[in-house]
Amino acid sequence: MSEKVTVTSPFWKRYRENVVKEVIPYQWAVINDDQKIVVPKDPGGNDDSDEVSNEWSHAVRNLRVAAGEEKAPFNGMVFQDSDVYKWLEEAAYALAYAPDKQLQDLCDQVVDLIARAQEPDGYLDTPFQIKSGSYEHRERFSQIQQSHEMYVMGHYIEAAVAYNEVTGNQQALDVAIKMADCLNTYFGPEEGKIHGADGHPEIELALSRLYDATHEERFLRLAKYFIDVRGVDPEFYDKQNEAVGDGSTDIFPAMREWSHEYTLTARPIRQQQTAEGHAVRVVYLLTGIAHIARLTGDAELKETAERLWANIVRRRMYITGNIGSTHIGEAFTYDYDLPNDMAYAETCASVGLSFVARQMLEMDTKGEYADVLEKQIFNGAIAGISLDGRHFYYVNPQEAYPEASEKSPDHAHVLMHRAEWFECACCPANIARFIASIDRYLYTVHEETRQIVAHQFIANEAELLDGVKVKQESNFPWDGHVEISVEVPQGSKPVDLSVRIPSWSRSQYSLSVNGAEASDLPLVDGFVTVHAEAGRTVVALDFDMSVKFMRANTAIRHDAGKIAVTRGPVVYCLEEEDNPAPLWQYQLEPDAASKASAQYKADELEGVEVLTVPVVRRTSDPQDSPLYMPVDEEPAQEKTTATFIPYYAWANRSVGQMQVWLDSAR
Amino acid sequence: MSEKVTVTSPFWKRYRENVVKEVIPYQWAVINDDQKIVVPKDPGGNDDSDEVSNEWSHAVRNLRVAAGEEKAPFNGMVFQDSDVYKWLEEAAYALAYAPDKQLQDLCDQVVDLIARAQEPDGYLDTPFQIKSGSYEHRERFSQIQQSHEMYVMGHYIEAAVAYNEVTGNQQALDVAIKMADCLNTYFGPEEGKIHGADGHPEIELALSRLYDATHEERFLRLAKYFIDVRGVDPEFYDKQNEAVGDGSTDIFPAMREWSHEYTLTARPIRQQQTAEGHAVRVVYLLTGIAHIARLTGDAELKETAERLWANIVRRRMYITGNIGSTHIGEAFTYDYDLPNDMAYAETCASVGLSFVARQMLEMDTKGEYADVLEKQIFNGAIAGISLDGRHFYYVNPQEAYPEASEKSPDHAHVLMHRAEWFECACCPANIARFIASIDRYLYTVHEETRQIVAHQFIANEAELLDGVKVKQESNFPWDGHVEISVEVPQGSKPVDLSVRIPSWSRSQYSLSVNGAEASDLPLVDGFVTVHAEAGRTVVALDFDMSVKFMRANTAIRHDAGKIAVTRGPVVYCLEEEDNPAPLWQYQLEPDAASKASAQYKADELEGVEVLTVPVVRRTSDPQDSPLYMPVDEEPAQEKTTATFIPYYAWANRSVGQMQVWLDSAR
Repeated sequence: MSEKVTVTSPFWKRYRENVVKEVIPYQWAVINDDQKIVVPKDPGGNDDSDEVSNEWSHAVRNLRVAAGEEKAPFNGMVFQDSDVYKWLEEAAYALAYAPDKQLQDLCDQVVDLIARAQEPDGYLDTPFQIKSGSYEHRERFSQIQQSHEMYVMGHYIEAAVAYNEVTGNQQALDVAIKMADCLNTYFGPEEGKIHGADGHPEIELALSRLYDATHEERFLRLAKYFIDVRGVDPEFYDKQNEAVGDGSTDIFPAMREWSHEYTLTARPIRQQQTAEGHAVRVVYLLTGIAHIARLTGDAELKETAERLWANIVRRRMYITGNIGSTHIGEAFTYDYDLPNDMAYAETCASVGLSFVARQMLEMDTKGEYADVLEKQIFNGAIAGISLDGRHFYYVNPQEAYPEASEKSPDHAHVLMHRAEWFECACCPANIARFIASIDRYLYTVHEETRQIVAHQFIANEAELLDGVKVKQESNFPWDGHVEISVEVPQGSKPVDLSVRIPSWSRSQYSLSVNGAEASDLPLVDGFVTVHAEAGRTVVALDFDMSVKFMRANTAIRHDAGKIAVTRGPVVYCLEEEDNPAPLWQYQLEPDAASKASAQYKADELEGVEVLTVPVVRRTSDPQDSPLYMPVDEEPAQEKTTATFIPYYAWANRSVGQMQVWLDSAR
Repeated sequence: MSEKVTVTSPFWKRYRENVVKEVIPYQWAVINDDQKIVVPKDPGGNDDSDEVSNEWSHAVRNLRVAAGEEKAPFNGMVFQDSDVYKWLEEAAYALAYAPDKQLQDLCDQVVDLIARAQEPDGYLDTPFQIKSGSYEHRERFSQIQQSHEMYVMGHYIEAAVAYNEVTGNQQALDVAIKMADCLNTYFGPEEGKIHGADGHPEIELALSRLYDATHEERFLRLAKYFIDVRGVDPEFYDKQNEAVGDGSTDIFPAMREWSHEYTLTARPIRQQQTAEGHAVRVVYLLTGIAHIARLTGDAELKETAERLWANIVRRRMYITGNIGSTHIGEAFTYDYDLPNDMAYAETCASVGLSFVARQMLEMDTKGEYADVLEKQIFNGAIAGISLDGRHFYYVNPQEAYPEASEKSPDHAHVLMHRAEWFECACCPANIARFIASIDRYLYTVHEETRQIVAHQFIANEAELLDGVKVKQESNFPWDGHVEISVEVPQGSKPVDLSVRIPSWSRSQYSLSVNGAEASDLPLVDGFVTVHAEAGRTVVALDFDMSVKFMRANTAIRHDAGKIAVTRGPVVYCLEEEDNPAPLWQYQLEPDAASKASAQYKADELEGVEVLTVPVVRRTSDPQDSPLYMPVDEEPAQEKTTATFIPYYAWANRSVGQMQVWLDSAR
């Protein structure tokens, strides 16, 4: 890609520097066994939350063993390799904004190790190469519902494309091409090839990226094949498992129950009406579908992406942008089922939904895509990493109670503090690569029409198109004043700058172009477009940063009669650290939003806008008062104020209760 | 027992006639394989709620096989025998109020079969006698954490005592005595005996009943031993399992996690502070503890019963009287954790809590015991059986949504309609024996002090003490007027009649004795006492039957800002059958209770008092309106009325939503 974007936003610069200083070295230490790891007993959280040390990741060692340079059994999840590849990808993005010879040398060595581990025919998946333990008698691609082989290789391909793009390392790309060609020999419509797709989507989006990097039609063809073969024979996985006499290995119990819906293979994907099953699988697949729909101009595929997107963001998404309503199978359940205290809301699913939003924006300049992406950028996705960069959430509840997590097995998946690592370590590297590549999520550029779409408000300096400079200045998300200047070189054709008016500010914002009031510019699908001739054009925006009390659609029973507090793009929450428990005693008066005040605290939570909000608080019944009593014996209520912090920043201090939704005092 | 009580209450007479006409023949047909059974896929509900036929119970057949009269493998749960014994016990109680030669002949044959199946040394537990399948190599009493051997024999002993008492069948009692003597040879403090108690309490209460029937000290001694040995060596079960190289057979996963707390063996029971683990185990054990504390005058044991009782009914009980907050392990969780839509609230646990209440009342005339018993009698326990007597609930939710039960695996244990039977069929016979023996739950009689405690208001005619006749007339629970007449024979000493003033009517009731106003009689622990000389004394009571809006203790987060509707002892609920869904759109105005009206509908739900209550209903957002929006875009609210029916009667019509708790409109 021709764009070069330098993030200058204080808020996001801190995250990105943290990834360079803390996350990358820490995660390398973990996957390279430089330090022991302690993980929650059950990463999926279907068990209890006692922590157990699983000692070592051995993810890098697995590659050395596969390369024949060390003797050891395979260790970890079947997709353990992807921990290394996602680390490589996050490092690649970091090198783009923080060049570091030492890190790059390390990455080069990792790429070389990967090259040595790769089979002559391009295959690379260490459990199936090491063949120890339960993998001893398992053949490559013989159980692709659960083997994650293509999922793992897809992650390598993504890393390779990114690393090659940033550093020019050709070996990385060659390994990826060889890998993709290996898949090409096994999969495809031709007689004698395997007619199925990986149980966990990823290869589709990865091959699309490889196509963008190489323009080799065969990769796009294979990517599209994996989309189209999915669900054509719903029994495909069952037949594979039966053929090897194994109907269960490595399958989530939930997957055994409803495997066809769970893996999106119940029907051809073009006929899929709703987002079912494992949330991350859905959004990874949607990312590939959208990418391929654009590359191939396949209208039906595009409609499929739009239909499933709409089902997710209009019926199955938490206000923070998180998705996935049940821990059982890390899955979607049904429309409007969004329990707050039982939410799964996996970090990877928020990152994946951001991938989808980015791809959808490439097709259409629609505010909804950017609004949802913004939710991840300031809420759902970044809640997955601690401010210190060394602790991670897999599950992102909308409501948390220490006693429930400890003593109610149904809530054991809700951790009260971020974990050092997970046995299933998909989330830590996923949020890291998202942060490190955030510069790629700010603009959509259409060279042919010379349209620059600025859909996110993260201060940055960019060079887009041929020499067109765009500069965004703001202290977003804390301040609603945003200035975007466009410099079109003399002699260059004019450009159209499309700027998003966020849904939360649509009813109230001001816009000026070169100092002249221009708020009357037509709003199309949530965007205003400014025509910029050669020279400098300055677009100044002021968004509505007032505190807003939000309610949920009445179809969501869990939020009935409840209110959530937002300011700009940021969803706030109440934490026990700032407000005496129990938090369910706090109520919000629907009309009191205007009485809330915001204050920036530079020394708290790495710099954060804190809200002081008037609340009505029920006083608690005295100890040992009866369990149930006539309502006229109401506990007294007192008017007071509560301190709200941004949701993404919760659980960075003491362990305590947290709530996003509060009862309405009405 | 010397008391003879004939239930005349229309409400309860119907239930008892239904048990005779429907339940007993139906349940016999099931356990005797006269009809196939269809059960929910996972009785414990930890899985999903699809129904599967498990064909046959084979419970009676198992006994024939154990008797050597038929060849077949053992079938069913390890405690399958108890289905037969609990049926025999319910039949015994029924024969007391509905003599039936044919039924009694059948019961005699069943007793004879049981006698033939019993080992010469008194042991009787068919899986361990048949030794097929997974039981092939398992020795008796080698894994008493999970074997349920004493649990099963305890249920036989209960049945035998009841059947002997009602019919005089001596064989039944002889088998029980032989059984108890067998246990005596295996268990006890003596060197060489097994020093542990059954993983599922029951034998303690059964041996206490056997002592009452036989006055054989050795049975009371053994019962007390089982109480005292419990938890002395927390590792006892683990050692047993290790000894046979099996740490898992037949154990709930939850049990494996926290087996010591789960089975109440983490510490000596006298040191147990809270009700932990499997709810039914707790209340069965408490029943035995209370019974033995009374028989032995053991003050510490009594305090233990009082302490655990208080923890349950003051911190861990739903307003309907149901207990057990999580389906994972059918267990208690922690104080004030009472989720409405995830409730487990097992029918057996309500029946068991009634056992405890009855035993506690034998020790102390305290209103709380009778109030909780009353909750089961009109709410929690009887909700476990359908009005037709052929369908049963294992789980009794306080809130139910068809879509959640179908599509959210966390809610799969919540069935929207009562099941024909369960693979683990503990509940159907338990609720049946409770209903058939309800006449034993109305009075506590103290012969020495000539005190008659009338703690329940179910119309009846009774002969208590030596010729003292008590007659209760009322149309309770629909009507609050209750007349209790006591006839003390001329020449007999006077008696004290203690009558409970229910907690829900304590602030407002009227009382007259022989027509003379006597509402000023002192209220002691919830009871008023009337001194009745020889002759006829009539006590007339009028209770407060106004509709009441109840709130929960503020420590219960799930009910924060919510209201439940009650009338007299009956807890009401809202059902979709009577009120357009979604039910979470209905709100109650705290001060509107006085505007509610009650009407008796003889032709609905077998005769029921229906409430018409003013409500405020939010109108639902139109299809496809956004998921989240500013609260000022409130949906319109309309004042209307809603129809409430008693909780026990829910799910007897069409499948639909149900809620006990509604949002407060404040």
